[in-house]
Amino acid sequence: MSQVDTLVRGTIVNVNAGALQEGAIAIDDGEIVALEERPAERTFEAEYIAPGLIDAHKHVESSMVTIPQYGEAMIPRGVTSIVHDPHEIANVLGADGVRAVFEDATKTPLKVRFSVPSSVPASNLQDSGATLDADDVESLLKHEHAVALGEVMDLPALVENDPDLHAKIRAARERGLTVDGHLPRVTGPDLHEAARYLDNDHESISEAEAREKVNLGFRVYLREGSSSKNLADLVGIVDEVPTRRLSLCSDDRDVVDLVENGGVDFAVRKAIEEGVDPIEAVQMATLNTAECYDFPYGRIQPGAPADLVLLNDLESWDVDHVLIDGQIDPTSSVCSPPTTALSSETVDFEPVSGADLALTLPAEMERVTVRTLAIADGIQTERTEATLSVVGGRIEPVPDDDVLPLAVIERHGQDAGIGCGFVRGLGLECGAIGSTVAHDAHNCIVAGTTYDAMARIANHLRDIDGGVAVYDPQRSGQEITALPLPVAGLMSDDPLSTVCERFKQVIARAEDLGLDRHSLMTLSFLALEVIPQYRLTNRGLVDVERWKHVDVIVE
Amino acid sequence: MSQVDTLVRGTIVNVNAGALQEGAIAIDDGEIVALEERPAERTFEAEYIAPGLIDAHKHVESSMVTIPQYGEAMIPRGVTSIVHDPHEIANVLGADGVRAVFEDATKTPLKVRFSVPSSVPASNLQDSGATLDADDVESLLKHEHAVALGEVMDLPALVENDPDLHAKIRAARERGLTVDGHLPRVTGPDLHEAARYLDNDHESISEAEAREKVNLGFRVYLREGSSSKNLADLVGIVDEVPTRRLSLCSDDRDVVDLVENGGVDFAVRKAIEEGVDPIEAVQMATLNTAECYDFPYGRIQPGAPADLVLLNDLESWDVDHVLIDGQIDPTSSVCSPPTTALSSETVDFEPVSGADLALTLPAEMERVTVRTLAIADGIQTERTEATLSVVGGRIEPVPDDDVLPLAVIERHGQDAGIGCGFVRGLGLECGAIGSTVAHDAHNCIVAGTTYDAMARIANHLRDIDGGVAVYDPQRSGQEITALPLPVAGLMSDDPLSTVCERFKQVIARAEDLGLDRHSLMTLSFLALEVIPQYRLTNRGLVDVERWKHVDVIVE
Repeated sequence: MSQVDTLVRGTIVNVNAGALQEGAIAIDDGEIVALEERPAERTFEAEYIAPGLIDAHKHVESSMVTIPQYGEAMIPRGVTSIVHDPHEIANVLGADGVRAVFEDATKTPLKVRFSVPSSVPASNLQDSGATLDADDVESLLKHEHAVALGEVMDLPALVENDPDLHAKIRAARERGLTVDGHLPRVTGPDLHEAARYLDNDHESISEAEAREKVNLGFRVYLREGSSSKNLADLVGIVDEVPTRRLSLCSDDRDVVDLVENGGVDFAVRKAIEEGVDPIEAVQMATLNTAECYDFPYGRIQPGAPADLVLLNDLESWDVDHVLIDGQIDPTSSVCSPPTTALSSETVDFEPVSGADLALTLPAEMERVTVRTLAIADGIQTERTEATLSVVGGRIEPVPDDDVLPLAVIERHGQDAGIGCGFVRGLGLECGAIGSTVAHDAHNCIVAGTTYDAMARIANHLRDIDGGVAVYDPQRSGQEITALPLPVAGLMSDDPLSTVCERFKQVIARAEDLGLDRHSLMTLSFLALEVIPQYRLTNRGLVDVERWKHVDVIVE
Repeated sequence: MSQVDTLVRGTIVNVNAGALQEGAIAIDDGEIVALEERPAERTFEAEYIAPGLIDAHKHVESSMVTIPQYGEAMIPRGVTSIVHDPHEIANVLGADGVRAVFEDATKTPLKVRFSVPSSVPASNLQDSGATLDADDVESLLKHEHAVALGEVMDLPALVENDPDLHAKIRAARERGLTVDGHLPRVTGPDLHEAARYLDNDHESISEAEAREKVNLGFRVYLREGSSSKNLADLVGIVDEVPTRRLSLCSDDRDVVDLVENGGVDFAVRKAIEEGVDPIEAVQMATLNTAECYDFPYGRIQPGAPADLVLLNDLESWDVDHVLIDGQIDPTSSVCSPPTTALSSETVDFEPVSGADLALTLPAEMERVTVRTLAIADGIQTERTEATLSVVGGRIEPVPDDDVLPLAVIERHGQDAGIGCGFVRGLGLECGAIGSTVAHDAHNCIVAGTTYDAMARIANHLRDIDGGVAVYDPQRSGQEITALPLPVAGLMSDDPLSTVCERFKQVIARAEDLGLDRHSLMTLSFLALEVIPQYRLTNRGLVDVERWKHVDVIVE
């Protein structure tokens, strides 16, 4: 019997057989060649051996690092592949940006597969940096690692047969690719219609919602992101539907969460903690997802690439070593991540003053009722109203009632204006916060207890080519603390540890101002005009369920 | 809400959800558009509604009818798709024959998808009518309904990296297609090596064999053919492995079995009788197989073609109506099946005499020991020996001991000779039987109690362009009863009922001679040089496990 280069012995998590099996895995030239003993050049012993994990749906941009840095963080945790939808980059930099992401993905051993963004811009209710039309999408789908059309968000366009969207769907189908869905709270006839075109969904927040989707043929992804954590709410369906229809994903996770808790590996651990059988939990992050996207990995069998996780313990997902294509711990010798191919000059708007960020009312008016977007669970918002004082034609913020001005400044150099509105429940007691990460158009979003504080933050973000910043007027000489994100205004090319530490400082400063750990991510979703109920874009307040702008001022 | 053309109400076998659900299926323009009530032009009520069944592995030729006739028989039973490997036609007529089969498949509503034969000829130990080399296979794989490379039978070529076979496998992989396996009793290192290249197997005869294959990543098909019935032996693994890895198939079924018992619908009924949960049994003949070959059907969900079976009863699979692409009972108005595009002039050998079919020994020899292929379970044979009398240089048959001469005559016009040997356990008491259906090369195979009777059958088969025939010397004036199979010497283009009745007559005449119901199919496998242990080809006796010819005469 011929010698192989690597043999790994231990208890194998055989996801095909749905069983733990004592055995050996023979690897040669990057491929699993047998599941039994072979003479080998080197041998590893492990308590457990699982397939490398696959994150079924991921926006790397949300972790504020580039793909090589993301790979460096995830591989030691046993994540060996992700389905990455570069939706944020596409909103800022368009098809050329996506091509730069393709290039970045060649700089990490992580197997990055792509969902090509389908919904850029997310709507015509906001100005983004770029548009991906059907021709752009068709061109991007030709990339060897494009595996899906990215989450289809524009439900009205889908159900009303918008020709551009349906051309994108056809382009994916003609290449035999998957079409990802995005169907928060969609039910009834619209969901049935969506089921004709979409293969999966990761937006369920209740078992009933998830169950209806499984019944209609969707693969349902249980999501454990930084803001949207639905696994605990959905985990009961594991006992109700065939788990083959379920996958795990992390979607949007911030860099601190990433460094401290991990990506889809965290979801696996959490599923096990919630009572899911460990083998099923691993299937949901390996074989099931591999079947959805037709990956050759995600399983331990002859002929599959040797993407393996050697574990000290299965239930706690305690990783000892990771193999990708047979290479052991492929990121362990990386000193600093390779640089990105993405642009660092994407934040382009004229400096603003406080007056630019305030609604102007007649000077004689004393009180006004405004529509306010109130922060609810996760990234949801609710429609509320507030009656506020007007002084000199400008509406006064009421920090004590947690009703604050919010502004969204178009930042892609199109001079497309500023949307002004009000947010309730953010918790900011003083100063201002702002970000050029503001899904999906990634304009510059700022909230504050004064309009001038908001302007100060906005102008600082402009000066540093984008980032996340906190303005604390009480910290004399150090009023602004920022995490610069010059790569498309979304990410940093700095080492992972630097980004994480800086973001922690920003969070600490935000906490000084009364905010919580997740407030900055919450802020970054307040402009996302496809998630109910109210959102603010650079063109004004959006009533999502009516899919149109509404006046901030209640007449 | 817009009106649809068809609504079906009943208890839906939801294979995605793994559940029975009371509901309605709205169909428009051949597609399922919703799983709820819609205004409809016409409405059907059913007790149960299941997805149309898919036969995961099928050689239609074994049913001795053409594809349109096969469709006519299967659709009313709820079979709406088959994965057909036209391996027999390819052995007789090559790539042009396969293309004629593609054309035949357009003449039935049955969704015929193709595994392109990989192993034609099955070996170099026999002369077939044609060869499919890697270029032929690559060309055939381009057909829009080619979904797999057909069962890879030549294990030595596979494990020894035969370049032609591996070029065929690569051609399938490059098109993203499945590679079907054929691994009877293969275990250990050879099975591990085969698992690198093959996706499925339908040849297991024990649970242990099937379990080892599931462990190595194979999808395992439980087969219920006319000769090879393994479902009852394998059904226990349904409780041991995830059933998603299991499918049902019928492989080879004769026309009588087809008309009286059905195809893969019989396997579904039998699985339920054996205790398999009815929903899982249906999954094994729908969703699981659809996932293996990436079919859009095999499930009831919006966006899927409306291929549905309306049942009066689920457990007994009592079919009321069948829809394919929304068309109700699409074969019900067919008067006679369309004619085939296949050739009817394929049986080409010189007339034979009894002497041509006998081994010749020295005139003075009185006894000799010969190797005999003994019929065992299913289509297996065993290596045995017999010591026989020699009279005038010719070995005497011993009908009383059930040791009879067997001959295989090359019939593809190549003048490639006659193989002579002995069979034990056939049960023929008098006369002779013969067939031009003789897997896989489909030469003319005859067995008899006298050499002259054998010659008479062979010459008759030659005269009628092929078929299956019985010679009973006691039936004066009606000595020969035959089912003519002029289409490639394998099939009849006559109406299904005619073929079935004629084959019954042939079987009845065979039973008069001491044979049983399946003896003619058994005969047709005695030349199949890839199934252990002994086989006879036109070039002589084969020891399958040694993959070589051996002398009939024991020295």
